[in-house]
Amino acid sequence: MFKKSFLKNIAKKEKVSLSFLEKQLRNNKAVIPLNNQKEIKNPVVIGDGFKVKINTNIGVSSEKPNVSEEMKKLKEAIRCGSDAVMDLSIGAKPSILRKQIIKQSIIPLGTVPIYEAAVNAEKKNGSFEQMSFDCIWETLKKQAQEGVDFFTIHSGILKNSLEYLKNNKRTGGIVSRGGAILARWMLVNKQENPLYLNFDKILNLAKKYNISISLGDALRPGAISDSTDNLQISELQVLGELVKKCWRKGVQVMVEGPGHIPLNEIETNIKLEKKICHGAPFYVLGPLPTDVAAGYDHISSAIGGTIAAYYGANFLCVVTPAEHLRHPDINDIREGVIASKIAAHSVDLLRFKDEWEKNRKISDYRAQRKWQKTFPLTLDQKKAKSYHQKIKPSDDICTMCGKFCSLKIIDKCDLLK
Amino acid sequence: MFKKSFLKNIAKKEKVSLSFLEKQLRNNKAVIPLNNQKEIKNPVVIGDGFKVKINTNIGVSSEKPNVSEEMKKLKEAIRCGSDAVMDLSIGAKPSILRKQIIKQSIIPLGTVPIYEAAVNAEKKNGSFEQMSFDCIWETLKKQAQEGVDFFTIHSGILKNSLEYLKNNKRTGGIVSRGGAILARWMLVNKQENPLYLNFDKILNLAKKYNISISLGDALRPGAISDSTDNLQISELQVLGELVKKCWRKGVQVMVEGPGHIPLNEIETNIKLEKKICHGAPFYVLGPLPTDVAAGYDHISSAIGGTIAAYYGANFLCVVTPAEHLRHPDINDIREGVIASKIAAHSVDLLRFKDEWEKNRKISDYRAQRKWQKTFPLTLDQKKAKSYHQKIKPSDDICTMCGKFCSLKIIDKCDLLK
Repeated sequence: MFKKSFLKNIAKKEKVSLSFLEKQLRNNKAVIPLNNQKEIKNPVVIGDGFKVKINTNIGVSSEKPNVSEEMKKLKEAIRCGSDAVMDLSIGAKPSILRKQIIKQSIIPLGTVPIYEAAVNAEKKNGSFEQMSFDCIWETLKKQAQEGVDFFTIHSGILKNSLEYLKNNKRTGGIVSRGGAILARWMLVNKQENPLYLNFDKILNLAKKYNISISLGDALRPGAISDSTDNLQISELQVLGELVKKCWRKGVQVMVEGPGHIPLNEIETNIKLEKKICHGAPFYVLGPLPTDVAAGYDHISSAIGGTIAAYYGANFLCVVTPAEHLRHPDINDIREGVIASKIAAHSVDLLRFKDEWEKNRKISDYRAQRKWQKTFPLTLDQKKAKSYHQKIKPSDDICTMCGKFCSLKIIDKCDLLK
Repeated sequence: MFKKSFLKNIAKKEKVSLSFLEKQLRNNKAVIPLNNQKEIKNPVVIGDGFKVKINTNIGVSSEKPNVSEEMKKLKEAIRCGSDAVMDLSIGAKPSILRKQIIKQSIIPLGTVPIYEAAVNAEKKNGSFEQMSFDCIWETLKKQAQEGVDFFTIHSGILKNSLEYLKNNKRTGGIVSRGGAILARWMLVNKQENPLYLNFDKILNLAKKYNISISLGDALRPGAISDSTDNLQISELQVLGELVKKCWRKGVQVMVEGPGHIPLNEIETNIKLEKKICHGAPFYVLGPLPTDVAAGYDHISSAIGGTIAAYYGANFLCVVTPAEHLRHPDINDIREGVIASKIAAHSVDLLRFKDEWEKNRKISDYRAQRKWQKTFPLTLDQKKAKSYHQKIKPSDDICTMCGKFCSLKIIDKCDLLK
């Protein structure tokens, strides 16, 4: 599937052996999302035994159709260390943005093709409820040919899930945009999920272009009180079956996960996915351990994401401070990406010598008050530099403690030499 | 020690029975820091079985001597839900700020009296190394009489700790300001820690004014690579002995803890403190699970603080984005307090019905897109309101998904009624 020289580079970046990388790919414990129609500068491997990766969502909408603004967000996300980007454009014409991303981005690109299909159906037939599978299929084909690296496919939400939902109240209902579109479509058309019925056909396309499938969690909890409920678990079981289908076709696959989970259920959720989905890489949105932090959900998400990654989640989706409130701006993107990087790095430093060393090095420079050497090692040196306030330009202490700087006092004691 | 009517109010706020509160106080599992020279509007109980509390540090320094700026920070911290404040003034004249806080604050106040003692010694004798115990004692007495509610006392750092530090390299050395001052003093004067030698005398004063002792961790790790090392553990053992001394005198006591701890050692650190310090309430600074996030250490701290509180830490010290870089401004204070509140609430919602219900309620309103009802339930309604962008003033969807709002689509499906 991939050339040896290509894999060698990835293994080198991950600080693992080529044979380990090959083994993990062979055993479906990891994926490298990369459409075979193109090359990118920074391909990544996502899965067990590799560094935790993070994804940033961008995208235009009918209310925010500014493509260049989204491209700026992409650049900021890459500067701050995002490993992948998803274009979640909906409402507006998404193809212009997507083509620009494919042309310019150095990191893998994912999409949720049902969004564009819904918009196209609306244009053609007046509403997304009138969307045919043909319309979905044309979108999938177009995006595959253009060079999208991974598709979120919501094949796990089924007619019987909706029956269940009718009879079992949930606080948040369905918060997945793709899930909501499909639920509405199924109810209006009284038909089964077309992404489930046509899954084999979709896999043939994915195989042809080496597109990785990211199995969407349409029924993820959108409120703490819905966490780990029967709906969520039933969908996970469907996804577990679909994972096997992917593997039988030789298609790379990962599984998407919640969402909103209380602290005491995060470990269980990770273990459950690894068990029910046969060890497929796990891509989590959050999880948020509380619902009260609107405006600061990047922090809630960093908390949940850290714990999730610690227990085995492989891929973290960035949540920005704008989550639940508005379309994010470029500052929201930066705050969100850094929060997720903190989560990823906190886990990686336990597992990878180079990450541990990087972390130790910054503490070493900090103890010596070599400020200029610490900045390039921080996650966002632009902010760290702009924050740093020295007493005098010539001095090596900051305004926090002034001359009562503990580090400087200890320096005088000759305790550390 | 406390009147029944006073305790009844605290129990009511905590949603526990009066008898449970009394039992926890009797068994030294909890403290209520409150100087008997005064009353405050919002006293709090800190300890096992109660909601997780958070403390915010403010304070002037020779570089930032603006008292009114610090008072603004105090107000912002209280608005955002801080349960206590510590005045860590050093370098400048701290008594003006302290008196204002005592006069105006509705929450308990803590100090680190060695800071003022060091400044006074410097003024009087030219350097803090010339500080006599008399000078420390005068400071303690003055602050006690003024109405400080809890004192951080660094009695656990001993001469032999410094010997050990000389022979066993540490990345971060001593990062505690109080610890550094005392270490330097001990080395220059070739004497044992005066706060250790005179601990009984200090306890008599604490007893007289019902001041809670917060045993400082002068030897806490200031770098991940120093975490849970012999120095830290030896100091904890000394603190364990001092905890018993406090109890024998009838003085309320809590123990301060790290600092910088990797994720896989946080649980151990909490359990160790609870064991070695005989179940005394645990007050943690962070912990930060990574050292690379300068400019975003409120997020690292929220991650570590959540995990710490989950395993039993009772009191979280706010870390701001300015940590390691500069004296924080009012925005830093707000960001830091909210981050800590997220940590505390994420744990509290697992333990307290009212916190769970508050959390469920916001999700309920969110699912119904009753925006105005969600805001008062968020941690910072000012930010949530300012972030929220509706498509049209009359509409109930936001700019994130526009008309493809999953919640609105699901509403049309009649699945949740």
